[in-house]
Amino acid sequence: MTQLDQRFGSIGIFDSGFGGLTVMRAIRELMPFENIIYFGDTARLPYGSKSSETILRYSLENASFLSTQGIKVLVIACNTSCSAALEQVRNSSDIPVIGITEQGVEEVTRLFSHGKVAILGTRATITSGVYQHQILSRSSNLELYSISCPLFVPLVEEGYVEHPMSALVVQEYLRPLKNRGINGVLLGCTHYPLLQSTIQHELGTEVLLIDPAIACAGKTRMVLAEKTLLNPSTCLPHYQFFVSDDPEKFRLLGKTFLNYPIEHVQQKLVNCINQTLHSINYTV
Amino acid sequence: MTQLDQRFGSIGIFDSGFGGLTVMRAIRELMPFENIIYFGDTARLPYGSKSSETILRYSLENASFLSTQGIKVLVIACNTSCSAALEQVRNSSDIPVIGITEQGVEEVTRLFSHGKVAILGTRATITSGVYQHQILSRSSNLELYSISCPLFVPLVEEGYVEHPMSALVVQEYLRPLKNRGINGVLLGCTHYPLLQSTIQHELGTEVLLIDPAIACAGKTRMVLAEKTLLNPSTCLPHYQFFVSDDPEKFRLLGKTFLNYPIEHVQQKLVNCINQTLHSINYTV
Repeated sequence: MTQLDQRFGSIGIFDSGFGGLTVMRAIRELMPFENIIYFGDTARLPYGSKSSETILRYSLENASFLSTQGIKVLVIACNTSCSAALEQVRNSSDIPVIGITEQGVEEVTRLFSHGKVAILGTRATITSGVYQHQILSRSSNLELYSISCPLFVPLVEEGYVEHPMSALVVQEYLRPLKNRGINGVLLGCTHYPLLQSTIQHELGTEVLLIDPAIACAGKTRMVLAEKTLLNPSTCLPHYQFFVSDDPEKFRLLGKTFLNYPIEHVQQKLVNCINQTLHSINYTV
Repeated sequence: MTQLDQRFGSIGIFDSGFGGLTVMRAIRELMPFENIIYFGDTARLPYGSKSSETILRYSLENASFLSTQGIKVLVIACNTSCSAALEQVRNSSDIPVIGITEQGVEEVTRLFSHGKVAILGTRATITSGVYQHQILSRSSNLELYSISCPLFVPLVEEGYVEHPMSALVVQEYLRPLKNRGINGVLLGCTHYPLLQSTIQHELGTEVLLIDPAIACAGKTRMVLAEKTLLNPSTCLPHYQFFVSDDPEKFRLLGKTFLNYPIEHVQQKLVNCINQTLHSINYTV
């Protein structure tokens, strides 16, 4: 692709499922004329409770698929994937790779030089220590609390966003943070912004909730601008959605995350995985 | 394999993860000298929120893997798999295939000819209507209630078995059953027996909870006896465990389900899936 062609290329985004659509939403709002290709690995979600080896394998496959689709930058919009695979994906890629976790670290350390900050994430993200380590290496005066909230993803993926069950589960997970004088809470999983109002209600309005999606969109814009890869078009952009499980469920549930209608979801990757996996029947 | 060899073969069991170990437990207690091979598809769980096409594909792969391991009977210990794939697995198999859902139907219709029975299951199982249809075709006087409980599997897989969160979620899901004069509740997912005491506490002791695992073990014994395939040995049996994700997590959490120590979990299938899936990087 020539430099000119590349500018018309797409921003590639992947996530284990729906959560990354909150990042796509921020990118779309900041860069309304950029084409975007989104992949949600809905047939294998959730990632957060799985081993780092499995998450690494899935992440490399997702990145590899998107790289065949003519993308000019790759955004890993899944904290769990970043915690297990960001460096490896970056090393295997010849386009810029932006990880949501790095933007989460940037945001926390930009906003707080001291005080008490809690990190909420999946079990894999919290266990990896990626947030804790990177934040403390920049702002050693911060007092960090980290809580893995493994039920938040199923709650959101099942559509229990405004549901009494969410309030109950949020209350239970955030109990250790109550009356601790917490200043900020990093939403360290792209599903969690969907529970933002419930979390805010539980912790009180004096606690600042930090969603790395906006910083992630800003970083994407900066990287594209630096490489003169911003799309000069002012025409309506083209959005493509791929999933590895049911496209219709994604189409219906996805618009809540994206805050924008999803017209069509493609199954191309499902077929590819189907064909390849199918051979396992005869090779194991 | 000769007929004699076959008697020393294993009972094959698969599930999306840990839940099927409750079925293995019942089989082990009924037939303490039978060898058993268990496969838990932990890298792709949960099945219950995924599409029937994806569940069918995963189920055929799991059955195919076990069929290469010298099994004499296959038990599908996953209600979701049965709801989407029992007939297809049976048609593609040259050994007897026992599905947990059929045993659930047997149990409900054996215990109740009239009254009110609730079926609890994953979203896929409940949506398929397999339980409702098969039970009513045998006992049309029963009044059935069906409730999908998509958070029960993540609760159990995350180890929240005796946790306040389980009580809260159980309470929320079973609210429609309270004060309805329910006579029986079918635990239509192999994970749910782990929440049995919480469910019983919520509904009261007058409600009979039906776990199809025991009937499933009985049916397996009957099929093996009919085909003179029961193992004549009275030596300690050999148990093999395969998973598609982290073996150590399975080993540690699995003993709660099995009520028996798990010494060693193999990763053989992971490697096979690894190798095959890895080629997707280059073929999509």
